[in-house]
Amino acid sequence: MSTIDRRARRHEATRAEIRTTARALLVERGPDAVTVNAVARRMGISGPALYRYYASHQALAGALGADIHADLLMHLNTCREAGADASPGATLLRLGHGLRRWALDHPEEFAWTFARPTSTGSSLSPDTAGEDFEAVFRHEFETLWHTSRFPTHAPETLAVGLRAQLEDYVRRSGTSLPVEAAHIFLSSWMRIYGHLCMEVLGQLDFAFTDPGPSYAQCLDELHAQLHPQTESRPR
Amino acid sequence: MSTIDRRARRHEATRAEIRTTARALLVERGPDAVTVNAVARRMGISGPALYRYYASHQALAGALGADIHADLLMHLNTCREAGADASPGATLLRLGHGLRRWALDHPEEFAWTFARPTSTGSSLSPDTAGEDFEAVFRHEFETLWHTSRFPTHAPETLAVGLRAQLEDYVRRSGTSLPVEAAHIFLSSWMRIYGHLCMEVLGQLDFAFTDPGPSYAQCLDELHAQLHPQTESRPR
Repeated sequence: MSTIDRRARRHEATRAEIRTTARALLVERGPDAVTVNAVARRMGISGPALYRYYASHQALAGALGADIHADLLMHLNTCREAGADASPGATLLRLGHGLRRWALDHPEEFAWTFARPTSTGSSLSPDTAGEDFEAVFRHEFETLWHTSRFPTHAPETLAVGLRAQLEDYVRRSGTSLPVEAAHIFLSSWMRIYGHLCMEVLGQLDFAFTDPGPSYAQCLDELHAQLHPQTESRPR
Repeated sequence: MSTIDRRARRHEATRAEIRTTARALLVERGPDAVTVNAVARRMGISGPALYRYYASHQALAGALGADIHADLLMHLNTCREAGADASPGATLLRLGHGLRRWALDHPEEFAWTFARPTSTGSSLSPDTAGEDFEAVFRHEFETLWHTSRFPTHAPETLAVGLRAQLEDYVRRSGTSLPVEAAHIFLSSWMRIYGHLCMEVLGQLDFAFTDPGPSYAQCLDELHAQLHPQTESRPR
């Protein structure tokens, strides 16, 4: 191994240690504790030395976000694989429950990466944007759509300005869903993710001591909407 | 006026000035700028002097949250009164759009009070909990329910554990909605508020450049669900 290789490896190892330390601070003491100086102090190096690995607090926060993001993705893929021979609908239920379980098991990490006001400084670098994350769910919608369809709104009934953005989303994401099915996917995604955000933000405390059953009901209603033959729609 | 009265008034006036200053800091420089020392500095008093008015950062944050909460409530009441002779359904649409408009016009305040992870230290004191805020919307659901009903799920189809919590919510909130209608109210509330949270948290950027039309579509779909005679449900 050349000197340059060894240096590059050592550099990467230190970067990994910095991220691990930042994450430990986040979990133990909350988001405000994740500062460049606190990380450096815990590692026994100086703040300026740390800046050689991550040039700013934002760069460090973004890298930490990317690690957390990758962990959640791995968890979701494990959830999916655990029911590899299940129907897309059953897999969606499994993924929905898996998403909430991960969020509750990792409250600080979830809040850091997925439920932080962007105005306080984004914690996600561009390469860790939501794409991969929602795509795990979208993949099941695609399978479902191509095997058995699901009910949609006629594209011409969609709100002005929405249809064009959906067309754009379909193009950018490379999904095989048509616009009207992409709308159902995104609406469903917003219902479960919105429910989770409200729970994490304490915005369901006025109604529920345990939002779990409401979340489960939401998943069941979405499942019924996607499978009209077995559905229990409002009377 | 007695000396005690004058003192009490002066005390209240200073407390109000502290909250106004804290809010200005929030709007101008973001949530991290709202510290007891920063507020004191801007007012030209010492940190310890400020603690005579608000005993902790949390007390100050809670009082600021209460002010913001009261402002949003006033805005929603204005929205409602602007269409005093409209149907409950039309008023709900107006309130839904009014809620988002206020949130976008006051991003820092909305994030501070209504979209902040509770794990980072609650910014709401108990007396400013969500009750009044969701009750503005619930009131219209109650009017609608008692004039024309809306479709519900049969109570016995609700998820295990959800029904008991709904019964509890109905009891605590004093709403005249039965359990199955309270479920529709809370589900609808979570859809619009969840959509708004996701927008404010930047969690819709992967799909929409402007989440406005999607939000409008969501309100329209909820309106249709509440008014089946004019509805355009998924085919």
